[in-house]
Amino acid sequence: SKPLIKNFSSSSRTRDAFSPLDTFPRRHNGSSDSDVKKMLDIIGIKNMEELASKTVPANILSKRSLVLEEGLTENELLKTLKNIAAKNKIYKTYIGMGYTDTIVPPVILRNILESPGWYTQYTPYQPEISQGRLESLLNFQTMVTDLTGMDIANSSLLDEGTAAAEAMLIAYSAGKQKQHTFFVDEKCHPQTIACLQTRAECFKIKVIIGNALEYNFDQHGKDLFGVLAQYPATDGTINDYTELANKIHSIGGQMICATDLLALTLLTPPGEWGADIAIGNSQRFGVPLGYGGPHAAFFACKKQHVRRIPGRLVGVSRDVSGNKAYRLSLQTREQHIRREKATSNICTAQALLANMAAMYGVYHGPEGVKNIAKRIHDFTNTLAAEIKSHGYTIKSDLFFDTLNVHIEGGSDKILEKALKVGINFRKVDDFTIGITLDETVTKNDLENLIRVFAKDSSYVPNLVDVKKSNIPNQFLRTSPFMQHQVFNSYHSETEMLRYIYHLQSKDLSLAHSMISLGSCTMKLNATTEMIPVTWPEFSNIHPFAPIDQAEGYKIIIRDLEHDLAEITGFDGISLQPNSGAQGEYAGLRVIGAYHKSRGNEKRDVCLIPDSAHGTNPASAAMSGMSVLNVKCNNGVLDIKDLEEKAKKYKDRLAAFMVTYPSTFGVFEDGVVEACEIIHNYGGQVYMDGANMNAQIGLCKPAEIGADVCHLNLHKTFCIPHGGGGPGVGPIGVKSHLVPFLPGHPIIKTSGDNGIGPVSAAPFGSPNILPISWTYIKLMGSEGLKSATYHALLNANYMARRLSEHYKILYTNKNGMCAHEFIVDVRPFAISADIHAIDIAKRLQDYGFHSPTMSWPVTNTLMIEPTESESKVELDRFCDAMISIREEIREVELGKQPKGDNILTNSPHTIQTLVKPTWDKAYTREQAAFPVKSLRERKFWPTVGRLNDTYGDINLICTCPPMKDYSDLD
Amino acid sequence: SKPLIKNFSSSSRTRDAFSPLDTFPRRHNGSSDSDVKKMLDIIGIKNMEELASKTVPANILSKRSLVLEEGLTENELLKTLKNIAAKNKIYKTYIGMGYTDTIVPPVILRNILESPGWYTQYTPYQPEISQGRLESLLNFQTMVTDLTGMDIANSSLLDEGTAAAEAMLIAYSAGKQKQHTFFVDEKCHPQTIACLQTRAECFKIKVIIGNALEYNFDQHGKDLFGVLAQYPATDGTINDYTELANKIHSIGGQMICATDLLALTLLTPPGEWGADIAIGNSQRFGVPLGYGGPHAAFFACKKQHVRRIPGRLVGVSRDVSGNKAYRLSLQTREQHIRREKATSNICTAQALLANMAAMYGVYHGPEGVKNIAKRIHDFTNTLAAEIKSHGYTIKSDLFFDTLNVHIEGGSDKILEKALKVGINFRKVDDFTIGITLDETVTKNDLENLIRVFAKDSSYVPNLVDVKKSNIPNQFLRTSPFMQHQVFNSYHSETEMLRYIYHLQSKDLSLAHSMISLGSCTMKLNATTEMIPVTWPEFSNIHPFAPIDQAEGYKIIIRDLEHDLAEITGFDGISLQPNSGAQGEYAGLRVIGAYHKSRGNEKRDVCLIPDSAHGTNPASAAMSGMSVLNVKCNNGVLDIKDLEEKAKKYKDRLAAFMVTYPSTFGVFEDGVVEACEIIHNYGGQVYMDGANMNAQIGLCKPAEIGADVCHLNLHKTFCIPHGGGGPGVGPIGVKSHLVPFLPGHPIIKTSGDNGIGPVSAAPFGSPNILPISWTYIKLMGSEGLKSATYHALLNANYMARRLSEHYKILYTNKNGMCAHEFIVDVRPFAISADIHAIDIAKRLQDYGFHSPTMSWPVTNTLMIEPTESESKVELDRFCDAMISIREEIREVELGKQPKGDNILTNSPHTIQTLVKPTWDKAYTREQAAFPVKSLRERKFWPTVGRLNDTYGDINLICTCPPMKDYSDLD
Ligand SMILES: Cc1ncc(COP(=O)(O)O)c(C=O)c1O
Ligand SMILES: Cc1ncc(COP(=O)(O)O)c(C=O)c1O
Ligand SMILES: O=C([O-])O
Repeated sequence: SKPLIKNFSSSSRTRDAFSPLDTFPRRHNGSSDSDVKKMLDIIGIKNMEELASKTVPANILSKRSLVLEEGLTENELLKTLKNIAAKNKIYKTYIGMGYTDTIVPPVILRNILESPGWYTQYTPYQPEISQGRLESLLNFQTMVTDLTGMDIANSSLLDEGTAAAEAMLIAYSAGKQKQHTFFVDEKCHPQTIACLQTRAECFKIKVIIGNALEYNFDQHGKDLFGVLAQYPATDGTINDYTELANKIHSIGGQMICATDLLALTLLTPPGEWGADIAIGNSQRFGVPLGYGGPHAAFFACKKQHVRRIPGRLVGVSRDVSGNKAYRLSLQTREQHIRREKATSNICTAQALLANMAAMYGVYHGPEGVKNIAKRIHDFTNTLAAEIKSHGYTIKSDLFFDTLNVHIEGGSDKILEKALKVGINFRKVDDFTIGITLDETVTKNDLENLIRVFAKDSSYVPNLVDVKKSNIPNQFLRTSPFMQHQVFNSYHSETEMLRYIYHLQSKDLSLAHSMISLGSCTMKLNATTEMIPVTWPEFSNIHPFAPIDQAEGYKIIIRDLEHDLAEITGFDGISLQPNSGAQGEYAGLRVIGAYHKSRGNEKRDVCLIPDSAHGTNPASAAMSGMSVLNVKCNNGVLDIKDLEEKAKKYKDRLAAFMVTYPSTFGVFEDGVVEACEIIHNYGGQVYMDGANMNAQIGLCKPAEIGADVCHLNLHKTFCIPHGGGGPGVGPIGVKSHLVPFLPGHPIIKTSGDNGIGPVSAAPFGSPNILPISWTYIKLMGSEGLKSATYHALLNANYMARRLSEHYKILYTNKNGMCAHEFIVDVRPFAISADIHAIDIAKRLQDYGFHSPTMSWPVTNTLMIEPTESESKVELDRFCDAMISIREEIREVELGKQPKGDNILTNSPHTIQTLVKPTWDKAYTREQAAFPVKSLRERKFWPTVGRLNDTYGDINLICTCPPMKDYSDLD
Repeated sequence: SKPLIKNFSSSSRTRDAFSPLDTFPRRHNGSSDSDVKKMLDIIGIKNMEELASKTVPANILSKRSLVLEEGLTENELLKTLKNIAAKNKIYKTYIGMGYTDTIVPPVILRNILESPGWYTQYTPYQPEISQGRLESLLNFQTMVTDLTGMDIANSSLLDEGTAAAEAMLIAYSAGKQKQHTFFVDEKCHPQTIACLQTRAECFKIKVIIGNALEYNFDQHGKDLFGVLAQYPATDGTINDYTELANKIHSIGGQMICATDLLALTLLTPPGEWGADIAIGNSQRFGVPLGYGGPHAAFFACKKQHVRRIPGRLVGVSRDVSGNKAYRLSLQTREQHIRREKATSNICTAQALLANMAAMYGVYHGPEGVKNIAKRIHDFTNTLAAEIKSHGYTIKSDLFFDTLNVHIEGGSDKILEKALKVGINFRKVDDFTIGITLDETVTKNDLENLIRVFAKDSSYVPNLVDVKKSNIPNQFLRTSPFMQHQVFNSYHSETEMLRYIYHLQSKDLSLAHSMISLGSCTMKLNATTEMIPVTWPEFSNIHPFAPIDQAEGYKIIIRDLEHDLAEITGFDGISLQPNSGAQGEYAGLRVIGAYHKSRGNEKRDVCLIPDSAHGTNPASAAMSGMSVLNVKCNNGVLDIKDLEEKAKKYKDRLAAFMVTYPSTFGVFEDGVVEACEIIHNYGGQVYMDGANMNAQIGLCKPAEIGADVCHLNLHKTFCIPHGGGGPGVGPIGVKSHLVPFLPGHPIIKTSGDNGIGPVSAAPFGSPNILPISWTYIKLMGSEGLKSATYHALLNANYMARRLSEHYKILYTNKNGMCAHEFIVDVRPFAISADIHAIDIAKRLQDYGFHSPTMSWPVTNTLMIEPTESESKVELDRFCDAMISIREEIREVELGKQPKGDNILTNSPHTIQTLVKPTWDKAYTREQAAFPVKSLRERKFWPTVGRLNDTYGDINLICTCPPMKDYSDLD
């Protein structure tokens, strides 16, 4: 008998007797065929096709099936990909420019980067079940704060280039957006300058590039709001910016410093010479190069900017019992709230990579990192002397790890000579090359380098000793750093391993139970998808390596662009944006460029439904657009309101941003009409692709009417969320927009009319692209469609089960939701003084992560199960929700008092439950094990409910002092 | 300033300014230089040299330092090793013979084989903190029991060859060792036959090899105690052994069947046609080939043999609260107890690999494995037809996955032709080749195979359909298997991942806290050591592949032999033994062969101190020796007693087995003298190397006087214990014994006088040899010595701290212990009715694994910290022990009743602690958090104390039925 094609009864795929057995879709999708049948029965639907036809409006269903390669087995995939990976050539690379090779401590590699316990976590919005990564991110903040000499640091930004742009905008805001001139020192990395220029364009900011140490700032009167200088500079030089900082301050501007954490172990930190903001890349702290990303950028600043810091900020607070507990603080700063006033839209950042960098700090400690820095510097110094001895000129004697060498005969000759022996230098200009050393460099490497400069090919270097530092005292750091015990305790591998495991044990991840966060698509991140990420062929390439060394990546990028285009129906794809929000920004900028190219600069109005994700208006604002809300009635876009506003602003209409299926979890009927209206009035349609998981194989954004759409590879395409990043937010565009896709100053990525780069690296975060590539190649067209079916089925099944106990908000005319749905818990506020947060926290006692809370509707829960969850797990979750409903009833009936009941007191920690006295209206066992299965399997929160107010008032964003560790007792 | 050489103040290593910073010893050893200083101070000793001189007798301290290559950094090491690995050539291999390629499900690879949470566990002797792997091993037993159709199965043996030998000896014992003839069917794998012959030699067993289906068994009257036949046979044929089994039973013998789990999904299982015992290799259930090992062999039998089963047996029992709980059952069967009556010495087995195989079963389920088997069989059938169509003869039409093809022109021609296209066949004889297919074979592979047989080199195979099974009904399995829910629930990757994580969460491993098991050396298993294990270059080689395809392995093996010889002072090393116990057996057999070669066959007495590990007398017994105990007085070997016995048996004296430092944890002064005595009386000295961790770099077994010594690479040389294996127990021997090292029938491993193989694979378990190789190469001579210093220091430091609260048994004349020491808790039996087990269980409440309990002295605890633990961890453990001493005092003082106190009720589970009523003389909080740090970090036992008697009386060794899962409530 032919092997069954599991999990996709409606498959049309022809299989022969030689076809492999273990197809991937049945591993990716959670439920078996027989469970699918049961679920369909409960919903009262015959098969998947009927499900789709009742869920998706007929006018948008794709006419033709996806045409992608047939799905490979995992075994075939890994072999195929290994061959592609082998096309990348790993040279010894000294290009620098903010990216250097590094040694990933193996214990961190295996137990963080390769561990689902770390990579499948969501952003720690539920602090009680996230204390591990919150602690680790706090370590990151502490390390950055210490090294930069600043007051406070956030828990990562997307890359150094955008961090510089964010800093510029903070300075801009600090000046109340009334000053408009920003100065950038010419010795910043070119990609940093380019990112910053991209970002400045839509604000009324004039960016001047020049020599900051010689420039006459007075010519701008009081219009200068800030200066960016790099320390050490892109040419390797160390400059004294003290006077510069004083000068800038005197004219009311902010001094921003782009810097290098490793250099700061030796050099006076920016915070000590007057910088107000310090930014940079923490990649060299044990995060692989990965052809440009993902890496964690950092952002640190002085106290006065604290409430302007973009991105996430971990703070120290207290739980209800007064125990120390970490949480994300000052959420009020976030773009969710600021919406159209935003200067930043950052959401997904680089948590996983920040954790790696922090752990690198923990592993090496202050002495360790300083010794690494010293060694690199001494080696650089030694190399400089040797190169000089061969008759070359080193352009400056004041450097940390980078030399600029003047090449009399022209750079190309020496670059070629180096290439022949597998070495990459930076070509600074026709007569200058750059050499940046890193911690991987050995004596042998130094000798190979010297041989490149020796005129006599038989020259044998004879290195007897290193040439010690010649950095003048004025630059030398005297202040201590990383004194906290966390950086001084775990230096053996055993201690380090246990620390990593200990933190991990506090955090709920997909390795425990479903994370049904609506709009987040927390699906399986399969091992086969993750394995290639840490292959050296993908890890060890510099983003600016000659492109013929990255043939493997080229294939991945080309394939992915092709397949995503097929899936979305678009004509062009840019993989550059590093997150969904960045995709939005890129897409809107592309729209802006398009209008401009047609002489429609005045088109600046962006229509956005009032239910939209906060990043939408924020991105629009950052793109220089004026945001206008469109009404939604009862979960349905008000087409009349849309049309009226489109008409009213027809000359200024730039774009309409729409999430589809809607943020209310429904495939709206009116979407095609809405797109037509916008097009009729000369606008462009931007689709927010956060909900793409409901569409693949059924319909396509481009066919629906979108001109641009971003995808979240970290949602729909299996890149794990990493506890708050990495992400990839590519955009797809129709042909008329292709010419405007983002460019890059160093590696060509677009046509000649491309907007500037939105990311520091040409292809964003290539190291994780193999994940999505693998997913698509494993699934094939039919597999991808089956995943969509399962996603829709799971949501509708849960909605059906829960509808007997809760009110489900919004379904379509057939009573169907899309891949997610909203549970209304507002009635309990009145009946029992119970709110969404109480249910969210009580779910922790049941071993679950809460669904999305209070978005897009306040005091509701939005549930997105994804296709990867099994019926068993869906039932377990539904059972928990139903049990909680009964618990609420106890309060409604007065059996438990309002305000002091099993819900409001949740989550319950072991510590609370073993206290000697117990005076609650419920038992300890009810608190701990409300359903039987929890006795066998339960994840425990490690702290009680957080006190948010306490944390925001007493803001502490670095590791608490030792005494705070001892008052637990 | 020069970088500090951390953690080894007494280093004489010269380092220059170019030396790498991050040397491995400081990651491997737990404590920093400053902590070392503190510990030395507390012991009252100046430095490591003084520590050594006060601990190790002067007459055995080595005169010269180790001469090994200087330690590499982890980064250098991985590069070097990758180059070596690349010398292995990965061919598509159809050799079969019990080893086939397999697809390791990536989720199992990453989350079990590559996870410290699984690989660093110890054997689950402490069931309350081992329920995860106990469940998984029970799954293994259930799967094996089901597939073989037997009543009971154990949780793994070392390999198929030794499993066959174990089975023979069970049959031998079943016949009360009164029958002496054993018949082996000639169609068993040659290495199985060879292992069995080796094992038979020292028992009075006559092994006859012949055609079991034709043999006249009556000629042996009632002397035949058993028959071994293979099903399917080594030539691929499937034979009906029903009548054979009946015949054997009728003459009072046992029918033993070597079999293949995958084939049994299709074929009538041995249990249904009359086999009494079934053994085999579970490798093809998702365990990499690894050039021969490690893999888990299985052993299953009928009820009547249950108390004879060798190795570990997981059983289902109850905890004190009556909850279902797993444990190792029938420990009374073990060689510890039987000592000199033993027919088996197995201890360390293959738990990690059994877990992988079990998880493969869980992942695929019964349908999945059956489909895999069907496909392989159909492919084999298809191939047979194609080969025939090219004019070849297939020797039998009745096969599962293996064809024997007659090659008219001689095998070599076709073997060579195959080699040219990267294919390995088995050379059965000069005119026969064997081809065994496996689950990795694709249509493309089939076509490549067919092309080898096509006479026309341009032949293009055209496979349109598979040729379906032609196995006659009489052979087809009709009974169901793997019906238990565990094999029918976790088929999506998400479910599988969570199941693995869930089990892992129940088990304490080195990722949590120290496992201070005396004599077990639970040191760091560093990531860098583990990474190469799963490199395909090491994983994907067949043990009988042409040796020029294994050049990489050859280097590893040669290096390791060299380095271990240097470390121990021996002249020859055999890496073949798969465990310490097997090393003992091999070593004693080598001694026996030596005596025999000199005409001293009568030398058969083995002197063994009465404190010896149970494996020592068991190994001696299995080697045909008579065991004579030597007394120990107060922890010191009674030299007079030794001399008297040596003298008395001078003509029969074969060997003296001694553990050094002694099992009491002391470097005895008399060891050199003892060795001399033995030599004077013509005996050989066998050193049990379990305690080698105390010696490296300070002294050498060969210099002390040993002629043979086994090493435990899974103790001293960093192979992780894997929850009860794998292990490697190589032996080192002096030059006069080198000719007798173990041989192998297929790959040459020894000289012409070698004893037969003790393992099925020529080099035992090569896949894990890179671990020890890496350890040695990372540490270098000085690093290894530093580890020994740290190990001695840690033990002496703890002994010193604990000596103020407990009596420490046995130290040398300077008051020093070796690398471990014994805490005497016997006084508390009288003062408080508290026993070692109560302390062991109470330590679980403190988050610790118990030290070794009641061995070598009843009612004591033997603590071995190893060098990898930090002072912080040692202190944490000491604090726990001290706190427990105070808890005992409460009982002594009558504040808590005897028999119902915080110790006797331990360990405390969360379930117990949240019960509504509490009537103990201590609080819930005291039970849960006796020391403050537990509130931040605590590992929780998941069941209460086990009821051992219940489990042994109600023996259940397969997964309990569903109703047992539901009575928890
Ligand atoms: C609808 C929607 N748009 C945009 C975003 C922002 O995406 P990212 O976090 O990748 O920047 C999200 C994130 O959850 C979202 O749900
Ligand atoms: C002294 C001693 N000898 C022999 C052995 C047996 O070693 P293995 O478990 O590797 O067979 C042990 C195991 O702990 C031991 O401690
Ligand atoms: O298995 C042991 O005896 O350690």
